[in-house]
Amino acid sequence: MESTFGPTWSQSNVRGQAHLDGLGSLGDLGWYCVRGILWAFDFEMPYKVIAHPGTRFNDAGVIISCGATLEWKDGRTATFRASFLTDMVMRLTVMGSQAVLDIGDFVIPVKEDVATFQFNQGSAWVDRSTGWTRNTHVHEVKTELPQEALMLREFAQLVKGIITGTGKPNPIWPSVSKKTQAILNIVKESIEHDCSPITLS
Amino acid sequence: MESTFGPTWSQSNVRGQAHLDGLGSLGDLGWYCVRGILWAFDFEMPYKVIAHPGTRFNDAGVIISCGATLEWKDGRTATFRASFLTDMVMRLTVMGSQAVLDIGDFVIPVKEDVATFQFNQGSAWVDRSTGWTRNTHVHEVKTELPQEALMLREFAQLVKGIITGTGKPNPIWPSVSKKTQAILNIVKESIEHDCSPITLS
Repeated sequence: MESTFGPTWSQSNVRGQAHLDGLGSLGDLGWYCVRGILWAFDFEMPYKVIAHPGTRFNDAGVIISCGATLEWKDGRTATFRASFLTDMVMRLTVMGSQAVLDIGDFVIPVKEDVATFQFNQGSAWVDRSTGWTRNTHVHEVKTELPQEALMLREFAQLVKGIITGTGKPNPIWPSVSKKTQAILNIVKESIEHDCSPITLS
Repeated sequence: MESTFGPTWSQSNVRGQAHLDGLGSLGDLGWYCVRGILWAFDFEMPYKVIAHPGTRFNDAGVIISCGATLEWKDGRTATFRASFLTDMVMRLTVMGSQAVLDIGDFVIPVKEDVATFQFNQGSAWVDRSTGWTRNTHVHEVKTELPQEALMLREFAQLVKGIITGTGKPNPIWPSVSKKTQAILNIVKESIEHDCSPITLS
């Protein structure tokens, strides 16, 4: 998973100031990366997290580029990179044994009214391995409202349900938010300990 | 950089047998990844290499899935994954501060007579950040002969030059081959030492 914004992003943004959001690109783009990874792993927590070397900080000591590998007990892994230093890349790739899922704009949709993802399967060599081929299916999910508006509508409906006594909080949201934040914190801990592997209890 | 073949690959292949090629997916797909990375860095050697956790081995103890991060002294980094366990992905992405280069078939070309790469630049938010855009240029490099044939022709011409006394070895090839192999060896060393970082002397 790769998520990067351009280099001008971090100068004045809230994400680049230690007293506002000390997690920088890890808390911004890294949040989406980790949430996307957890989604691909059915929100099962990894058992080990290790930051990649090469973390960069701005003058205020805030992370502006970092990456990490997450490992699950059965041997599956995920890697991500969250950087303010390189041009726009927002790609989520889920590689399975039989197929590959690709999303090119998983952080901020390119368009408000449609989300596109690509599903590749049936890869095979062509005659005498002079090339290769696969079946590519491009899926479009249309939405009447922008995804951000849908998120706020969901939130407002949950709040309304609590206020009026007609509903109760959906436990999925605090659960996945806590898991996401926990992994970000562990990545930061690994960064602060010279990229040591951290095993989750 | 990601390079993965399907899971049936490693059963009988030369790359999966310890007495034939003990480097497995690292020596096979990883070779292309590392060479591609070195190419993107003008063949400047990194100063630090660290394997990612989650290396997988087959029953013969040969690597069938691994990854690593390379770091240069100026803070630039590269990551790669070389796996026989997941479906076909052969993507090289070079992320610069102003542009991004993408190649979707850098290990084995999809087609014999053309190589395609994509160059993205000028990324920008659209009005009120309701989406984003960038200029995408798809380049096609046509070739009369397959790339493998061009490689053999280059090799044969160099040998002919030596035999006939009309030419001499091109020092670029042993230089870049040695650098590539050196990095593979260091990745393997890091894997064998529980993913410790290895600093190059």
